[in-house]
Amino acid sequence: MAQMIGFLAAILGTICWVPQAWKAWATRDTSGLSLASNLMFLSTVVLWLTYGLMIGDAPLIAANVCATTAMVIIVAAKLRFG
Amino acid sequence: MAQMIGFLAAILGTICWVPQAWKAWATRDTSGLSLASNLMFLSTVVLWLTYGLMIGDAPLIAANVCATTAMVIIVAAKLRFG
Repeated sequence: MAQMIGFLAAILGTICWVPQAWKAWATRDTSGLSLASNLMFLSTVVLWLTYGLMIGDAPLIAANVCATTAMVIIVAAKLRFG
Repeated sequence: MAQMIGFLAAILGTICWVPQAWKAWATRDTSGLSLASNLMFLSTVVLWLTYGLMIGDAPLIAANVCATTAMVIIVAAKLRFG
């Protein structure tokens, strides 16, 4: 049961920023996004990805490749549209 | 070394949404925030918190209490200001 909840959290955490990435580029409405928060969260997922690579943990690597991609797209939109 | 990177990721992940929560309430500029993304990420941290409580992992509990608080404040601002 606990493991199922952990898996569900991992899957949700992987896909959750896709709608935000889409919205930022579709609407160019990025003024309300905090650059500090999004840069820190991008750093967070890059660090988790690095950690996953160092300990060779496949689920951690897969989840954080997806999250890093979404966060790069969001931060790029913020830097582009302000 | 890997463990230090993991700790740094955990700390950053805990505090990173505080500036977004602050900004959302200070500016009321929430139109660019994706409700879907923020609700999914709120669900993610609530699930991690539940998982942490079930397996009795103190760092996981502490990190996700902080993240859940920040995400509740962000989602509340989005629902309030649109």
